[in-house]
Amino acid sequence: VSERLLACALAGDSAALARLLSEIERGGGIAPALMDEVFARSGRAEVIGVTGPPGAGKSTLVAALIAELRRRGKRVAVLAVDPSSPLTGGAILGDRVRMAAISTDPDVFVRSMASRGELGGLALAAPAAIRLLDASGMDVVLVETVGVGQNEVAIAACADCVVLVLAPGAGDGVQAMKAGVLEIADVIAVNKADLPGAEQARADVAAALRLGAGARRVPTVLLTVAESGKGVAELAEAFERRVASQREDGQLAERRLERLRREALERAGWVVRRRILEHPERWLDAALLAGLAERTRDPASVGEAIADRALAAAADERP
Amino acid sequence: VSERLLACALAGDSAALARLLSEIERGGGIAPALMDEVFARSGRAEVIGVTGPPGAGKSTLVAALIAELRRRGKRVAVLAVDPSSPLTGGAILGDRVRMAAISTDPDVFVRSMASRGELGGLALAAPAAIRLLDASGMDVVLVETVGVGQNEVAIAACADCVVLVLAPGAGDGVQAMKAGVLEIADVIAVNKADLPGAEQARADVAAALRLGAGARRVPTVLLTVAESGKGVAELAEAFERRVASQREDGQLAERRLERLRREALERAGWVVRRRILEHPERWLDAALLAGLAERTRDPASVGEAIADRALAAAADERP
Repeated sequence: VSERLLACALAGDSAALARLLSEIERGGGIAPALMDEVFARSGRAEVIGVTGPPGAGKSTLVAALIAELRRRGKRVAVLAVDPSSPLTGGAILGDRVRMAAISTDPDVFVRSMASRGELGGLALAAPAAIRLLDASGMDVVLVETVGVGQNEVAIAACADCVVLVLAPGAGDGVQAMKAGVLEIADVIAVNKADLPGAEQARADVAAALRLGAGARRVPTVLLTVAESGKGVAELAEAFERRVASQREDGQLAERRLERLRREALERAGWVVRRRILEHPERWLDAALLAGLAERTRDPASVGEAIADRALAAAADERP
Repeated sequence: VSERLLACALAGDSAALARLLSEIERGGGIAPALMDEVFARSGRAEVIGVTGPPGAGKSTLVAALIAELRRRGKRVAVLAVDPSSPLTGGAILGDRVRMAAISTDPDVFVRSMASRGELGGLALAAPAAIRLLDASGMDVVLVETVGVGQNEVAIAACADCVVLVLAPGAGDGVQAMKAGVLEIADVIAVNKADLPGAEQARADVAAALRLGAGARRVPTVLLTVAESGKGVAELAEAFERRVASQREDGQLAERRLERLRREALERAGWVVRRRILEHPERWLDAALLAGLAERTRDPASVGEAIADRALAAAADERP
């Protein structure tokens, strides 16, 4: 990837941006020197995670949010992230929104990102993609995840503010609680609020929040109807207020640094793992191999032994 | 976990087996000495992976296979593996089959396993669970995965023989090819063969296989109707023949050892990763932290630096 391509992307050229995002998605990433430049220029955009169970209407709500944020004069990027395989879902929102009227607006950039390459690749690719969108001059980056679960929680952790989208019925509130998603939500949108049961869903969520309320800040709960736009302005206000208040009390910078630390450590873990898998001969000596072949030593125990060796040596060297 | 519980499980007690599998699923695993014992007693069962896209009828086909294998006097275990989050699917097959007539048969054990705890946990838990079922005296362990994709390919790699289940229509054949699943299949069942388009689906698969045919053995393609049992005996014969032929030419032992090596290395990678994340202070020194805080050094580059340190020290120590 050339410096020139990066320069175009940072100047806001959509085609260049798309090409660089493909590089990041493929897992190869961009040359370290260029990524350092992207990093240096990032930190300005507000990153809003949008998550929730399938069927809650996330995609439609995101489309409505784009329109609302454009009315406020913001440049908006959407990164629709699908941690499941390329086969079982994914890449839907991006295509849908891209086809809408929005696609002709130069200040909107929509992109979906699926899990390619090895497991966990997306968890590392997503923050890099967000930084690139940020550095290219977007004011708001909406990170939409498909589904609710472990991976989505991990990706929501890229965000300054997490919006959880629920819909009346189907026990979504309870399910979300189980998955620990309620705990990471800053704003909760009970969407499809024109359906029967919306008030009940809001009450259920509020009750669940009271149960879990402790030291942490209680999330704002709103009713929205993405189709008609009802409540969407209030939703945008809620997350902007949330980011502003974090900025004022210094939490924003602190949380962002914590995320960067975590990302660096995750990356280190993945790199170590990859290198061990790439050079088995360096790690599996004859004695360990014999243990496996003769079934005297379980693979888990052999794995622990390899890890002990790798890190013991490194730990000794540390100051 | 006590030795006594393990003794009960190895003697075929279902309740004890279920408890130990829960321990493995939770990620804590069983005490290494006990796992070594399980490992020593394993290696007798035939492990058959059953994979394919949602809607192909895997669960029904697995139920029919259980009945067929029982007719042949085999003890059968089913491990239904769901790599997606506990929320978005999973744990369905186990419940369904458990309720059927089969559940009263002491020589059938059905269990579903979902992804709990950290990402990748399942990839390590599944082989351990299979070894326990094997050591408990099962003749055949059917490992069914939900969905098709990266994770499923990884889990199918636990098996001596992989059965890919497809259904007519929906371009499943093409999708499976894209995901590289066709390449790992030893036997392909075109299920729901009473639907229109079954012959076409078989022809499509055969054509795709001819394209990809090279040094490797071409998979057997069969038509099945899980509901009526049509083709199920032939399917059981096909995978048993496949395992038998691998046993004769020595490939079975070789492939199993290769899987154990890979599992040990994977485990090592995960352990290293976990330890790095658990003790950030050992790895992120002041200079690296400053790079992140001042945005002069990208998290990816910081991660690589940490990995270099960890493994360079270990590599120096290696003979």
